[in-house]
Amino acid sequence: MSVILLFMGVERILPKASGIGERKIIELLIQNFNQMPEMVIPFGDDVSAVSIDKTQLAILKTDMLVGKTDIPPGMTLWQAARKAVIMTISDLASKGVKPIALLIALGLPRETSRVNIEEIAKGLNAGAQEYDVYIIGGDTGETSDLIICCVAFGITVKNKLITRSGAKVGDILAVTGFFGKTGAGLKILIDGLKVPPKIRKELLKAVYLPKAHLKEGLILANLGGVSASIDSSDGLAISLHELRKMSNVGFTLTKLPISPETFEFAKLYGLKPEELALYSGEEYELVLTITPKKWKSAKSIVEEMGGTLIAIGKATENKEICFQKEAVYSEILYKGWEHFRS
Amino acid sequence: MSVILLFMGVERILPKASGIGERKIIELLIQNFNQMPEMVIPFGDDVSAVSIDKTQLAILKTDMLVGKTDIPPGMTLWQAARKAVIMTISDLASKGVKPIALLIALGLPRETSRVNIEEIAKGLNAGAQEYDVYIIGGDTGETSDLIICCVAFGITVKNKLITRSGAKVGDILAVTGFFGKTGAGLKILIDGLKVPPKIRKELLKAVYLPKAHLKEGLILANLGGVSASIDSSDGLAISLHELRKMSNVGFTLTKLPISPETFEFAKLYGLKPEELALYSGEEYELVLTITPKKWKSAKSIVEEMGGTLIAIGKATENKEICFQKEAVYSEILYKGWEHFRS
Repeated sequence: MSVILLFMGVERILPKASGIGERKIIELLIQNFNQMPEMVIPFGDDVSAVSIDKTQLAILKTDMLVGKTDIPPGMTLWQAARKAVIMTISDLASKGVKPIALLIALGLPRETSRVNIEEIAKGLNAGAQEYDVYIIGGDTGETSDLIICCVAFGITVKNKLITRSGAKVGDILAVTGFFGKTGAGLKILIDGLKVPPKIRKELLKAVYLPKAHLKEGLILANLGGVSASIDSSDGLAISLHELRKMSNVGFTLTKLPISPETFEFAKLYGLKPEELALYSGEEYELVLTITPKKWKSAKSIVEEMGGTLIAIGKATENKEICFQKEAVYSEILYKGWEHFRS
Repeated sequence: MSVILLFMGVERILPKASGIGERKIIELLIQNFNQMPEMVIPFGDDVSAVSIDKTQLAILKTDMLVGKTDIPPGMTLWQAARKAVIMTISDLASKGVKPIALLIALGLPRETSRVNIEEIAKGLNAGAQEYDVYIIGGDTGETSDLIICCVAFGITVKNKLITRSGAKVGDILAVTGFFGKTGAGLKILIDGLKVPPKIRKELLKAVYLPKAHLKEGLILANLGGVSASIDSSDGLAISLHELRKMSNVGFTLTKLPISPETFEFAKLYGLKPEELALYSGEEYELVLTITPKKWKSAKSIVEEMGGTLIAIGKATENKEICFQKEAVYSEILYKGWEHFRS
């Protein structure tokens, strides 16, 4: 596996310069689109859907990986291609939908070698195989940077679909893992920071080999009781704000799910571990709300399959999103990874 | 509507330089993908498919439009965005499948203005509305050139799907319109050729405002008797060769469907109209084979709806593809529009 030299633009991994901002762009687009009558899932959720019949939905998702913004330094082409698949599958995972097939639209710079193309193909296939799904078609084009548009298709039963909009006051807020590793890993790579090998390995693994929590999503959708869910690719803080917007509740967190490696890394460089956990992004955990009645069985069913489900707070009537530590409430800001924006 | 200034690279519209070649890239990719068991449509057809149940298929397609290779000089952003939609819908049209929903993955250069984004959105929506389909989701990213990945989804009944592989010896080869206009139009734009206003208008319209022959595709799939079909986006010659490869027949053409404007243009500049009609690409006609039994009803049903269906030859046992004029047979080469290749 060759390390990427082709795709420059490291400074854009954490965007700095001007621009309209991804969310504003999406808003402008949607304003100009005629809306499908009886749209099953509104714009702004993790996936889109079309009714097949009375009970079934076709689920569709496309995610675009761009070399200069989505490939961190040192990531191989194999890893980048696999990541493009993971990003897309993670969105279906958050809705509790099993992907059946993938399409790949691949933009390659003219100078891409045969070896590089094979490495990309193998990475795409590895990501697909990990989640028991097949690539069945796609398109290629000549681009100045590597572009991988991954399209995922799945079918689900209407009453099992979990959207972003069902969280109710009193529901338990939970996540499938610990946060902060990707943010710390990106800092190591971009700023060339030194850390002990063991921590470094774990933090870089989070960056180079992300995982989609499909098993958790499927098992929880099957159990029922998950009122809302989102994948945390834009960071924990933005994920909470998006859930709030779509569900019209607030959240009070009583625990921040920070990984031990993130604590160690933060200590070394005088950083706040909370900031790394909340505002990084490029993590593919599920952020869910679960009814109190189903919480115990949800937790045990996920743990039985070898996964993690951590309660971190509750949905509240108050629309704020804050972290409560003893009697102190601190606001969690709408801040994190966003393409295009400073 | 502002004319594109952002997206340079005019010389690449007809690729000249080195590179592996799009078909070889696709071959390399497919070789490295695990193949889905019981794949409904093999790699290399216009669309991909997944079984929904015993009778229905989910049809999926993604097509990538890239600024520097797919946007001719003088094309507006509105037209480019619309074209991205038309390209994708045309593939479904060739299979006789009605698109239900579209997703758009949009890569925009950082400097893209609000006005430009709105123009792109309006173009996408216009293309969708023309074919009675809705955009239901997508993704955005920051790219150095404009990238539009359009994803189309449709549902069809298994026994109505038309693939590239069903042509039988004796079937009538037909097309939905005349060829050569796009090739002539691109020559005008790229080489700055002068032609009388009336012809110029017609030739540039073919470039800037292509149409997908969805109505024809749907009505013919419904009638039955279409044994194979392909959309001619790679040019008439390559389309015939692809049909041959998948159907294992040859074709003898007794008529070349050349538009009158192409004749006039070719005469002005001492070019061969046959070359323009066969080897240009970026046209979205359907190239079909139809059983002799159904030919008459196919022709009249398409003409009744205001369309065109022109018989241009027959499928033959001999695997060659040639044009017969009186007693002279000239070979039709595998040549045309292909990204990445000289």
